[in-house]
Amino acid sequence: MKLVSFTKDGITRIGAIENENVIDLNAAYCALLESEGKLRAEKIAEAFVPGEMTDFLKGGSESIEEAKKAAAYAINNVEVKGRKLVYSITDVKIEAPVPAPGKMICVGHNYREHILEMKRELPPHPVVFAKFANTVVGPQDDIPFHPISEQLDYEAEFAFVIGQRARNVSQDEALKYVAGYTIVNDVTYRDLQRRTLQWLQGKAVDGSAPMGPWLVTADDLTDPSGLDIVLTVNGEERQRSNTANLVFSVPYLVEFLSNIMTLEPGDIILTGTPGGVGVARDPQVFLKDGDVVRIEVDQVGVLKNKVKQTAEVPVS
Amino acid sequence: MKLVSFTKDGITRIGAIENENVIDLNAAYCALLESEGKLRAEKIAEAFVPGEMTDFLKGGSESIEEAKKAAAYAINNVEVKGRKLVYSITDVKIEAPVPAPGKMICVGHNYREHILEMKRELPPHPVVFAKFANTVVGPQDDIPFHPISEQLDYEAEFAFVIGQRARNVSQDEALKYVAGYTIVNDVTYRDLQRRTLQWLQGKAVDGSAPMGPWLVTADDLTDPSGLDIVLTVNGEERQRSNTANLVFSVPYLVEFLSNIMTLEPGDIILTGTPGGVGVARDPQVFLKDGDVVRIEVDQVGVLKNKVKQTAEVPVS
Repeated sequence: MKLVSFTKDGITRIGAIENENVIDLNAAYCALLESEGKLRAEKIAEAFVPGEMTDFLKGGSESIEEAKKAAAYAINNVEVKGRKLVYSITDVKIEAPVPAPGKMICVGHNYREHILEMKRELPPHPVVFAKFANTVVGPQDDIPFHPISEQLDYEAEFAFVIGQRARNVSQDEALKYVAGYTIVNDVTYRDLQRRTLQWLQGKAVDGSAPMGPWLVTADDLTDPSGLDIVLTVNGEERQRSNTANLVFSVPYLVEFLSNIMTLEPGDIILTGTPGGVGVARDPQVFLKDGDVVRIEVDQVGVLKNKVKQTAEVPVS
Repeated sequence: MKLVSFTKDGITRIGAIENENVIDLNAAYCALLESEGKLRAEKIAEAFVPGEMTDFLKGGSESIEEAKKAAAYAINNVEVKGRKLVYSITDVKIEAPVPAPGKMICVGHNYREHILEMKRELPPHPVVFAKFANTVVGPQDDIPFHPISEQLDYEAEFAFVIGQRARNVSQDEALKYVAGYTIVNDVTYRDLQRRTLQWLQGKAVDGSAPMGPWLVTADDLTDPSGLDIVLTVNGEERQRSNTANLVFSVPYLVEFLSNIMTLEPGDIILTGTPGGVGVARDPQVFLKDGDVVRIEVDQVGVLKNKVKQTAEVPVS
């Protein structure tokens, strides 16, 4: 299933993409229950297929199975009792699939060739750093370019979302704890990143994590290795690699991180970026107003955002 | 006001400390409204003095003023219609004042003498890094010592909590955006912190941010500079400084951070730790099972926690 968060009439809810349509999963599940004569359908739907993504993910595989039934029902019942269960994708706004992750954990130096271009050695342990939920924007949003930097850069990243609380989970069991996969552009203000040893300030700027276009559930993408990842700027290829080149794989990262901290449903882990970032090119090249950044990952999809200079004036 | 989160009968709500008592602010405000003959008192109380800390802080100074009225009412009406408004502090569990901060932003290298003991230069910009909400425990909890490290260390920190959304706020206006102040022990697993250049993995371990004992509201603590901060381990003084020695002050940090990212009510900023951490001592000394770490900050209070080795077995 391709799960999205979408906004219609000012309300954001989860949906499933079917061709050019979005199925409102909570509404569809409620309608399905009513069609079966269930009492308290709305309450049951809120329990099993809630309208908010993190709540939904907490339901684990049971909620995903129920959501699939809802989607199948909605395809043959696009409107029930005056309530639309299915929208054309052009009639809604698609948001980041996980609009407010509890944790955003980023892995640095995780593609072999990117490590080499940054003139660093292969790390014995994953390098991890954070972003916060204020960075998340969706696949139809612009990348805001705040006037606090002249070095806006892209980082194509394959990302996975936790679907079940994970603590001290072994690599062998790891994929059971992954709800699905998406794409994140780990937009980085290089001068802010590098003015201290800790990268957070260059990674935490509002709007610096475009995410999407959807969450491909783990039952549809069973092997996160071997996926091509390609980033272009205005159609020019800048990054290309394959998740088989990850130094630390998805299962390894689940084990490593869950030994340190409890991972919760809705937490998102960005697995790192391949070689070819702007700051490492010769000559260096940074993003500017109007640039279009497109990231494609095999079996996941395409995330495309335009850079837009903001008018705001920072205080210092 | 000294605001706490407290648990009674399995439910966590906000309270105000008065001598040795805890006032249930939401219940007290509801009772006050009913005593004034207000209809829908419960709904109004949930809107103005909600029971959860971050929700409460979103109400800004208006909610704090209403909470004060509630506290004054409860002192003379400890039980109304069979519902207790006031508990003895020994009858409840005191939790971290902000149990689930949206962001935890830590400042490194911010006391002059700590910078010197770590053999570093005074930084031109704040060094910032992250913790996540999984690290938060309360003033009555133990500090769990997970068996993934042999170098558990303390860091006494004066912390402030955001009370109002802040974006591009100047130093002059900064303190209006601060809800109040508390103490956090930025417990750090030094070997994990130092095995890569990014500190997050040594800072993000479950339970590594004891917080409390309460949140002193900004109307009661109007000047966050000039406060002594002292940390002892088993009664032996290890850290002593004064917030006047901060390289980057609370107002400066609000301006600096709000230029990078939108700060939200409930976000907590840890302002850095003074000299004297265990890893910088000669010989080095780390925390062990049973150690009692006590942090006192002038005009705020005392945060005291015991280290407790956990029985869990990490997978790797």
